[in-house]
Amino acid sequence: MKPTLGVCYYPEHWPEDIWPQDGRRMVEAGLTWVRIGEFAWSRLEPAPGHYEFGWLDRAIAVLGKAGLRVVLGTPTATPPRWMIARHPDMLAVDAQGRLRKFGSRRHYCFSHRGYLEDCKRIVTLLAERYGRNPHVAAWQTDNEYGCHDTTLSYSDAARAAFRDWLGQKYQSPDMLNRAWGNVFWSMEYRSFDEIDLPNLTVTEPNPAHVMDFRRFASDQVVAFNRAQVDILRRHTDAPIAHNYMGRVTDFDHFKLGADMEIASWDSYPIGFLSDRLEASAAHKAAFLRQGDPDFQAFHHDLYRAVGRGRWWVMEQQPGPVNWAPYNPAPLPGMVRLWTWEAFAHGAEAVCYFRWRQAPFAQEQMHAGLLRPDSADAPGLSEARETAHDLTNLPYIGSRDGDVALVFDYESAWAWDTQPQGADFDYFRLVFAWYRALRRLGLNVDILPPDTGDLSRWKLVLAPGLFTLSPDLRAAVHSCPGTVLFGPRANSKTGDFAIPDPLPPGLPGLDVRVTRVESLPPGVTMDLEGGGGFVHWLEDMEGTAPVMRRRADGQAALVGNGPVTYLAGWPQDDTLRAILRDLCDTHGIETLDLPDALRKRDTDTLRFWFNHGAHPIVWDGQEIPAAGVVWKARAECYTKSREI
Amino acid sequence: MKPTLGVCYYPEHWPEDIWPQDGRRMVEAGLTWVRIGEFAWSRLEPAPGHYEFGWLDRAIAVLGKAGLRVVLGTPTATPPRWMIARHPDMLAVDAQGRLRKFGSRRHYCFSHRGYLEDCKRIVTLLAERYGRNPHVAAWQTDNEYGCHDTTLSYSDAARAAFRDWLGQKYQSPDMLNRAWGNVFWSMEYRSFDEIDLPNLTVTEPNPAHVMDFRRFASDQVVAFNRAQVDILRRHTDAPIAHNYMGRVTDFDHFKLGADMEIASWDSYPIGFLSDRLEASAAHKAAFLRQGDPDFQAFHHDLYRAVGRGRWWVMEQQPGPVNWAPYNPAPLPGMVRLWTWEAFAHGAEAVCYFRWRQAPFAQEQMHAGLLRPDSADAPGLSEARETAHDLTNLPYIGSRDGDVALVFDYESAWAWDTQPQGADFDYFRLVFAWYRALRRLGLNVDILPPDTGDLSRWKLVLAPGLFTLSPDLRAAVHSCPGTVLFGPRANSKTGDFAIPDPLPPGLPGLDVRVTRVESLPPGVTMDLEGGGGFVHWLEDMEGTAPVMRRRADGQAALVGNGPVTYLAGWPQDDTLRAILRDLCDTHGIETLDLPDALRKRDTDTLRFWFNHGAHPIVWDGQEIPAAGVVWKARAECYTKSREI
Amino acid sequence: MKPTLGVCYYPEHWPEDIWPQDGRRMVEAGLTWVRIGEFAWSRLEPAPGHYEFGWLDRAIAVLGKAGLRVVLGTPTATPPRWMIARHPDMLAVDAQGRLRKFGSRRHYCFSHRGYLEDCKRIVTLLAERYGRNPHVAAWQTDNEYGCHDTTLSYSDAARAAFRDWLGQKYQSPDMLNRAWGNVFWSMEYRSFDEIDLPNLTVTEPNPAHVMDFRRFASDQVVAFNRAQVDILRRHTDAPIAHNYMGRVTDFDHFKLGADMEIASWDSYPIGFLSDRLEASAAHKAAFLRQGDPDFQAFHHDLYRAVGRGRWWVMEQQPGPVNWAPYNPAPLPGMVRLWTWEAFAHGAEAVCYFRWRQAPFAQEQMHAGLLRPDSADAPGLSEARETAHDLTNLPYIGSRDGDVALVFDYESAWAWDTQPQGADFDYFRLVFAWYRALRRLGLNVDILPPDTGDLSRWKLVLAPGLFTLSPDLRAAVHSCPGTVLFGPRANSKTGDFAIPDPLPPGLPGLDVRVTRVESLPPGVTMDLEGGGGFVHWLEDMEGTAPVMRRRADGQAALVGNGPVTYLAGWPQDDTLRAILRDLCDTHGIETLDLPDALRKRDTDTLRFWFNHGAHPIVWDGQEIPAAGVVWKARAECYTKSREI
Repeated sequence: MKPTLGVCYYPEHWPEDIWPQDGRRMVEAGLTWVRIGEFAWSRLEPAPGHYEFGWLDRAIAVLGKAGLRVVLGTPTATPPRWMIARHPDMLAVDAQGRLRKFGSRRHYCFSHRGYLEDCKRIVTLLAERYGRNPHVAAWQTDNEYGCHDTTLSYSDAARAAFRDWLGQKYQSPDMLNRAWGNVFWSMEYRSFDEIDLPNLTVTEPNPAHVMDFRRFASDQVVAFNRAQVDILRRHTDAPIAHNYMGRVTDFDHFKLGADMEIASWDSYPIGFLSDRLEASAAHKAAFLRQGDPDFQAFHHDLYRAVGRGRWWVMEQQPGPVNWAPYNPAPLPGMVRLWTWEAFAHGAEAVCYFRWRQAPFAQEQMHAGLLRPDSADAPGLSEARETAHDLTNLPYIGSRDGDVALVFDYESAWAWDTQPQGADFDYFRLVFAWYRALRRLGLNVDILPPDTGDLSRWKLVLAPGLFTLSPDLRAAVHSCPGTVLFGPRANSKTGDFAIPDPLPPGLPGLDVRVTRVESLPPGVTMDLEGGGGFVHWLEDMEGTAPVMRRRADGQAALVGNGPVTYLAGWPQDDTLRAILRDLCDTHGIETLDLPDALRKRDTDTLRFWFNHGAHPIVWDGQEIPAAGVVWKARAECYTKSREI
Repeated sequence: MKPTLGVCYYPEHWPEDIWPQDGRRMVEAGLTWVRIGEFAWSRLEPAPGHYEFGWLDRAIAVLGKAGLRVVLGTPTATPPRWMIARHPDMLAVDAQGRLRKFGSRRHYCFSHRGYLEDCKRIVTLLAERYGRNPHVAAWQTDNEYGCHDTTLSYSDAARAAFRDWLGQKYQSPDMLNRAWGNVFWSMEYRSFDEIDLPNLTVTEPNPAHVMDFRRFASDQVVAFNRAQVDILRRHTDAPIAHNYMGRVTDFDHFKLGADMEIASWDSYPIGFLSDRLEASAAHKAAFLRQGDPDFQAFHHDLYRAVGRGRWWVMEQQPGPVNWAPYNPAPLPGMVRLWTWEAFAHGAEAVCYFRWRQAPFAQEQMHAGLLRPDSADAPGLSEARETAHDLTNLPYIGSRDGDVALVFDYESAWAWDTQPQGADFDYFRLVFAWYRALRRLGLNVDILPPDTGDLSRWKLVLAPGLFTLSPDLRAAVHSCPGTVLFGPRANSKTGDFAIPDPLPPGLPGLDVRVTRVESLPPGVTMDLEGGGGFVHWLEDMEGTAPVMRRRADGQAALVGNGPVTYLAGWPQDDTLRAILRDLCDTHGIETLDLPDALRKRDTDTLRFWFNHGAHPIVWDGQEIPAAGVVWKARAECYTKSREI
Repeated sequence: MKPTLGVCYYPEHWPEDIWPQDGRRMVEAGLTWVRIGEFAWSRLEPAPGHYEFGWLDRAIAVLGKAGLRVVLGTPTATPPRWMIARHPDMLAVDAQGRLRKFGSRRHYCFSHRGYLEDCKRIVTLLAERYGRNPHVAAWQTDNEYGCHDTTLSYSDAARAAFRDWLGQKYQSPDMLNRAWGNVFWSMEYRSFDEIDLPNLTVTEPNPAHVMDFRRFASDQVVAFNRAQVDILRRHTDAPIAHNYMGRVTDFDHFKLGADMEIASWDSYPIGFLSDRLEASAAHKAAFLRQGDPDFQAFHHDLYRAVGRGRWWVMEQQPGPVNWAPYNPAPLPGMVRLWTWEAFAHGAEAVCYFRWRQAPFAQEQMHAGLLRPDSADAPGLSEARETAHDLTNLPYIGSRDGDVALVFDYESAWAWDTQPQGADFDYFRLVFAWYRALRRLGLNVDILPPDTGDLSRWKLVLAPGLFTLSPDLRAAVHSCPGTVLFGPRANSKTGDFAIPDPLPPGLPGLDVRVTRVESLPPGVTMDLEGGGGFVHWLEDMEGTAPVMRRRADGQAALVGNGPVTYLAGWPQDDTLRAILRDLCDTHGIETLDLPDALRKRDTDTLRFWFNHGAHPIVWDGQEIPAAGVVWKARAECYTKSREI
């Protein structure tokens, strides 16, 4: 199946008489998909129980007749104002105890039963009406769960639901007290009804309390989504997706994704660079109009895992956005590059957000493929060019990664709960490892933390893993090469306690972390033979063979068999060197790519992406700024062997 | 009419037996005016309905007999504690939902009807009693509206009033929905009573919602003030003023000022430098004890416009203040310089704040003309010297500016609502343009956004204007030279939407902004021929002639006729070069003044102000540090022609 | 009496069957004391009125029989969850108006009468049961009053109590109005019931209002503690202590300490360096694993004063902690160094916190003497080494300081209330003076602000003193050398007003501060002859002889007799030079110690402490990194004379 292009469209924003022309222009541009409906509740049900489906019927018909396939969104991210009157307590409450009011979007608490019922009602109506509509070829639930920090709510509804969740999990308050260690500071509870949400405590709450709250909150999102999926399933055979947002880790995407056929995400490379990336000012300046060269790829690989192979970009930035601290425009070529990078990582479809820039309301400064005056915006020509590329392209296919990297949402919550050093962040840690692999020119597969079979990768990485799942523990020996665990891996029990024996407790590796240190910025612990650790250090004891040492004599990297442990946060260069050595050991070919150049192999093709603002000559070929080139892989391999 | 000096005085703070001596010392120092009464409500009405006017009668008599003219303030900025008991809901609420409690000042919400009635009651009593008092020669309403972020309140009273205001404006919820674009994100309302204030939304509220709230809040201030003015008018012929605070843009001073004869403002140059100016640390260090060389002048010119020619400095910093992050003392000479600069810009009067430093309460560290022990403070001798200058000085007069600059409060609200780049700020933008003009040695007139006649200026500047008013649009062709519009000018409709055709939509200039970019600090877009844009860029299309281009080929400055458009935020040097070119074109003579030197021409005199800490030799004359010199203009022109 | 070692232990955290072994290992390590019980309320009274003392009986017996002496803590810092149900309004409220909820510790408002009664009840039960227990050799009240900003509460209980406190102090609202200067801004009250807590005012509240609130809050802590002490006294003869926390100045430790035999504090050098010290990044990097070389010593000397000679370190950091922004591990040797530094300053005992690292709850990342797996942690060997040192050491004794330094909690509150410059901080000021004295190699005594006899010191320093107490004023002439007052000293009346005549109003020194300036970072006022002032400057007039002048000619240091005044905040080098001159004048021998080396003399010994990460050669001897060496003082004196 060849990948396809699409676009997000809001028929309710425009006069009905321009819908046909819009549809025609979409098709002419080479687009296949049109996503609609996900914010339209106030138009579908303008007053409680008063429905207006006619316009949507007509919109789907017009778009379908134009030749487009519709992705229909459930509108539950934007309950109308009357819904708040019906359920005044459905609004979320922030960690400071403030009501999060109506007037934008995502103004609901996942735990509110009344709102959930209304969501099920509207989804049922939509599913019944459009489940068998021939133009509706896919569904999207809600929109960007977790965006605007909406996973965690400190409302009365959340408190009640949390108590229920704890009751289900622990059965008795004593069990909970023991699991959390509530003897500490006399925090013991005699009833689940005594337990509050872990905000506004005098000093830090018990990390076990916070961790369970994070798990609960994630479960609430999963349950909320599942209620919609269950309804849709009864009425449609079309695949169901949700559009995740970049670097949102507040709920477990693997658990949510397990309920749906397709994972999708919303890719805003330039916004993310400005808003969601720890990087030097120099790095941000160098990639100002291109976005980070690894941030999107990481999410592509992540959502390929979440979708068990089937994934989309549901929203692709086509020009400047409105929501980042600074909003420059993409360098010419980047819209095409981003699209092709998604395809090279296996995306089935890439949909641009949005068709026409809205001249009104919150996102009026967000570019579309059309300008607000309906003229072509720069992004449209790049979409068209990409569509043209596709018509000429052979089968792309996909292939396993050269290496695999474990990503675990629980770990993100755990280290957010207990960073121990002010700048310790799980995503940042894993992303640094991912970037190192990309600089080595490798295809990376991302794995969930309960992966049970590692036989497809000669190198598997797992930095910062909160707890080692039984499945992954069992799978370690299925890896034909090395599993490299990184700092803090398996350092806690599921109850957020330090295990005994001391961590990391890895199979076949006799080593115990006896002490950890967090370091302020600017402080480095040198390693013997060059390089160093920053942010985080661990002292170890045990008989495992020491492969690298710190300048103070402590072990830094231990194990030379199937299981290896890196006891610190390496500088970028150091990490790359360590990983290259491991690749060499296992015969995995690596490159030494420049900062802006990235490579991706598919079944049939080798892609090169120049994320830089200047041309790069590589392997005898000039890759233009913001350029993407590909060759049949056979040819590359020949060439690369010659190098 | 020669300008005069005055001072702010609080008879209620001091034993009655020193009033006569204080009055005598004021007159001996050359002061004409004494402002009193504006915080004395608890002394005028110590208990509800229990009045004590005797002390104020005597204070006015004593000061009047000493030869002083009294400015009498209404005490509505400081309602007594019993007022809060009477109207518990009169307190404002901040954007975080917290009550803003009694215990300092400005503790009221402009929308509270009950408090407004009490204000009208006390103002009526004062007006009746002192409206014809021969010593009371001017009135001040309230004190520093908007200071301490008090324009915006999120109280119940404000919510109710906002709904009324919206009802008046839109008549029907559907009209409002369409104007705001509430179809976006299902934000549609079915009744005005569903509309909340735009705070604490999950993510950003609709900018049209915020913009109307900002207009409403400004209107509430105007109405609150008008209620007082209407009462005073019935009882007095003396002019009425309000004392605005520096860089307060939360309400429309032009609209408020239209109701009064005189505009006045409170000038604290050193406090403003520390607290309210974006500038490099080096700039702040260089002007540490002098204040910024343009900040005061900008406000002088602004309030000359607000007062339609009649304006005062109601409070002039005479020494260190207490409220800025850091509070150094003025360099010797600066108090006189500041005073003369106000006069050179046309001030009728400059009043120092305050007579004697209070040894108690919040402002005990705020210098006065007297020390707390009643000895002369350093400021007093400079006031005396200025008074002496005045006795020797001929007619000063005033004259039109060489150029004009439009200032628009709505634009400040608009870009505060939707900066698009984190550091975009309208005041900052306009002030950069003002500074450039001052460095070129020009007299500047500031114009309100509805100016209807530009025939007096060969160069008119309008950067960042939210919408082009019909009046100003019609007036463009009255300008005998060039009207230069700047970035974001006319970029929105009054409903806060992107217009179609695209902005700037300027008369006679075929150009459309097709895309904008905001840039982080440190990033520059070079211009061909030197210079560059920072912060903000716009791409354009159209047939207007291109006068300057960006290094990437895009147009930067278009139009060579009466209307010109600058499509970015220029670096300071770049802006000065562009403006100098325009001045040259129109025969407006410019200078190239050093950083610390400023010039101001009046009808008869040319003033030079050295804001620096070191002497400057200019035009053959040494101007001492913190010094002001003047010459008859005839002489200057002769000389300047020789240069 | 030789100093002793101890440890903090939580028998309730561990299975009862390992208590005997734990006790044995403590004794074997050379420990004498074991502190227990201070967070165990939920285990002593698991349900209201249901008591479980058995386990504590057994724990005391086991530990006592092992040879340990028990410090028994009252558990009032951690009321159980059921207590909140009993007194829902006992929780404190923060300055933003948010309830500070259950779920960690210190969750109570000092003003709540109901909670106080429950505290008295549990303390009575403990005192009755263990007051005569032969193993209980000391008591601790509560835990770390003021930690986590818990001194100030804005609850209803606090408001009611504050009104009572004001009523007691002022007797009539008019008295209060006059004292506070409430005529300013019409802030006058007609009844004590009109007075609110000074939070959430529109702009800053009256500093006199805040200052009285700070005094009230401190008094509440003192009264809360006294209620416990009074009960304990009736049942035990053992000494009573409280464990203060580093750099907590929100209540008056002198007043609290006056009720108890022993002062103690909790010393976390590496945590404090990261969390509670204004210092350059270079300084923090240099002392990353050692802590600041003066911070602990300052507190040692402070608590020696608070305890009137008797003081302990109740909690000593033994490894990495969990609560600072960054948590590195101590350099080998530092645990011993810290312990010896405490002894050299006169500590009776040093107890390590804690015995075994808890694997669960909030402090699971806080090191103990044992690891969570019960193996020895690195700190244990240093504790053991110190115990061994002690067995070989002769009498240490103590001696008066070479100089004295006044420390005043009211001044900390005052300048927190009215900093006048954003970075003015009283502790920071006094600590800079303390550090200068230490760099000069001097023993320092810290004095309370009401010290009545200065005859033991030839040099007494008092920077930043809010008001000069009658006792200290009277004592000035008892000093045989010089009393040096520093900036802002005696600059306010007790009512927080500027006195007349102007400050500093020092006996025998004709000088008045006529104006003060605060300066932003990076701005310096040079002094004639080198050096400079930063942060703060004062202009003076008067006839006192001028010893140092500023480069602008103003006096900087005045007085050459028994009373001297320094009118600014000197740079560190400048301060050291000024103090060295004064020492020379009075024959006090000074050294010029390197940044990391410190000296302390006791009756019999001279100690050298190398806080650096590199060896230092001093006086012909190499002192290793993180090393402490001592000699008999007689020998040193001989040697030092030879230098």
